[in-house]
Amino acid sequence: MPPVKQLSAGLPMESLNILYWMPNLFAFNHSDMSQTVHLSLIQHAFESSPEATVKKVVDHIRNAANDGAQVICLQELFNTSYFCSTVNQKNFALAESIPGPTTNRLGKLAGELSVVLLVPVFEKEAAGLYYNSIAVIDADGTLLGKYRKMHIPEDPGFHEKYYFTPGDLGYRVFDTAYCKIGTLICWDQWFPEAARLTALKGADLIVYPTAIGTLHEERDAEKEQFKDAWKTIQRSHAIANGCFVASVNRVGIEEAARFWGGSFVAGPFGEILSEGDEQEGIISSEIDLSLIEPQRQAWPFFRDRRVDSYDSITKRIDT
Amino acid sequence: MPPVKQLSAGLPMESLNILYWMPNLFAFNHSDMSQTVHLSLIQHAFESSPEATVKKVVDHIRNAANDGAQVICLQELFNTSYFCSTVNQKNFALAESIPGPTTNRLGKLAGELSVVLLVPVFEKEAAGLYYNSIAVIDADGTLLGKYRKMHIPEDPGFHEKYYFTPGDLGYRVFDTAYCKIGTLICWDQWFPEAARLTALKGADLIVYPTAIGTLHEERDAEKEQFKDAWKTIQRSHAIANGCFVASVNRVGIEEAARFWGGSFVAGPFGEILSEGDEQEGIISSEIDLSLIEPQRQAWPFFRDRRVDSYDSITKRIDT
Repeated sequence: MPPVKQLSAGLPMESLNILYWMPNLFAFNHSDMSQTVHLSLIQHAFESSPEATVKKVVDHIRNAANDGAQVICLQELFNTSYFCSTVNQKNFALAESIPGPTTNRLGKLAGELSVVLLVPVFEKEAAGLYYNSIAVIDADGTLLGKYRKMHIPEDPGFHEKYYFTPGDLGYRVFDTAYCKIGTLICWDQWFPEAARLTALKGADLIVYPTAIGTLHEERDAEKEQFKDAWKTIQRSHAIANGCFVASVNRVGIEEAARFWGGSFVAGPFGEILSEGDEQEGIISSEIDLSLIEPQRQAWPFFRDRRVDSYDSITKRIDT
Repeated sequence: MPPVKQLSAGLPMESLNILYWMPNLFAFNHSDMSQTVHLSLIQHAFESSPEATVKKVVDHIRNAANDGAQVICLQELFNTSYFCSTVNQKNFALAESIPGPTTNRLGKLAGELSVVLLVPVFEKEAAGLYYNSIAVIDADGTLLGKYRKMHIPEDPGFHEKYYFTPGDLGYRVFDTAYCKIGTLICWDQWFPEAARLTALKGADLIVYPTAIGTLHEERDAEKEQFKDAWKTIQRSHAIANGCFVASVNRVGIEEAARFWGGSFVAGPFGEILSEGDEQEGIISSEIDLSLIEPQRQAWPFFRDRRVDSYDSITKRIDT
């Protein structure tokens, strides 16, 4: 059972939602009555150092929890700059293990605040073996596990193939205290296969910690087109899979890029529930898990998938 | 080599595009210099009978060709009403073979006008065996082949599982005189797998003849949400696959539904190139095939697909 987060006159915060008290009408096969989850995304700029950045993010986490957050997701490589803009061996020193100092520190905080924390860090597994990963910490502070970014980009200003070995853990869903969370990271967002495979594993919510922006030489018109495509394809994953999708992007001007923020939460038919701008901040939504099943009944894509015809999706090309 | 369609002072119509004359700059591995294709979508209302409807559509095809159309795509079940709104055995009488009277008639027209015609009809293969199909007719009038709708819906007002056996021909791309066209139909549009598999077969353009609308009891707000999701997921297929996408929807009020038109053409990063409203009409775009390869280089999703990790996409659920 999920820990009760905020008490008010002896009732859990969900009691504010009148639907909570109508289980016969809104039963939809959920095994408990907590249908609504308060999700917060923290989009922020890098400070002068990882330590200064973590300190600031801890303040944001405390503020979000104080406002009712139950699940908090941080951005990709949250405690470092976006160092992948250059190819520099010194940056491997930024990597850390999972569990490690950052996840231990945030694990204690998660337990203290009874929040689920999604913590993306530069992971070191061994000398010479590094991943772009996300640690999933449950609301009691337990490290549930990690996901390693499966799709790794390599483009001007985004030299990730230099730093990260492609993920070897497959697609993952974590049964947290508040909901089942599928974890994907940034470049994964452009691949419908990744969202589908994660949804098939039972995700109520797919999160995409991200670092996306425009290079300094790119024009505003290009930025708007990129941002629109970025939002469109992630909303499409919510639509195709009838689940919630949340994307958490950094802000600020760094060496190679201007990160555009715009973190958002989409509902199970792709509708935007909340959205940030280019400023540092907390983007929050009450996501109602009871919407998932009726959405999948109304638009029954899972019923009709032609799984007998999808074998060739494992080919690179089929001409 | 594609037949030259319209002559003007001895030059093909593509000569109006200055890029056409700069093959060294825009070579991108295309084997001929015709990079731009004039695509037209005909969205229309059903008339009083199939015969009256075909007569009207033939006029639209002639008008489109007169305006320079090279590829013309018709809507799903173009010559009948959307009879699937009711379950009625009499409607099987509307089915015809491919090749058959309608494709023969339109084949002659295609040859006369030197246009590629995409002709969706209710196909009868044998007594008791029917498909929701699309015939692909090349610009010399040859029937290149057909595609049978793979994903079949069954919902209030859309009783397609009663009428249509799910397609047995797989995903298909036709190498027409003007471009490589992948054919999918309506409900297929909600399945990213179908778009991916079609793109992997080499489609420059994926077409979605469609019949989508709102039931009479549905509110305008719902219509806007449905339409937005419908457009979003199809644009996402263009983005994910770096190809053109065109959707052709019917208009008009029929027994169970109000069809919302809104046919559109999207470019290889999901940008809308042209879009119809709820009125009958021809929606046209000059689609520039030379944009496909640089788009796929700039956003190199095909390079990075983790084909080693997609096996479970053939599962119904993976919890």
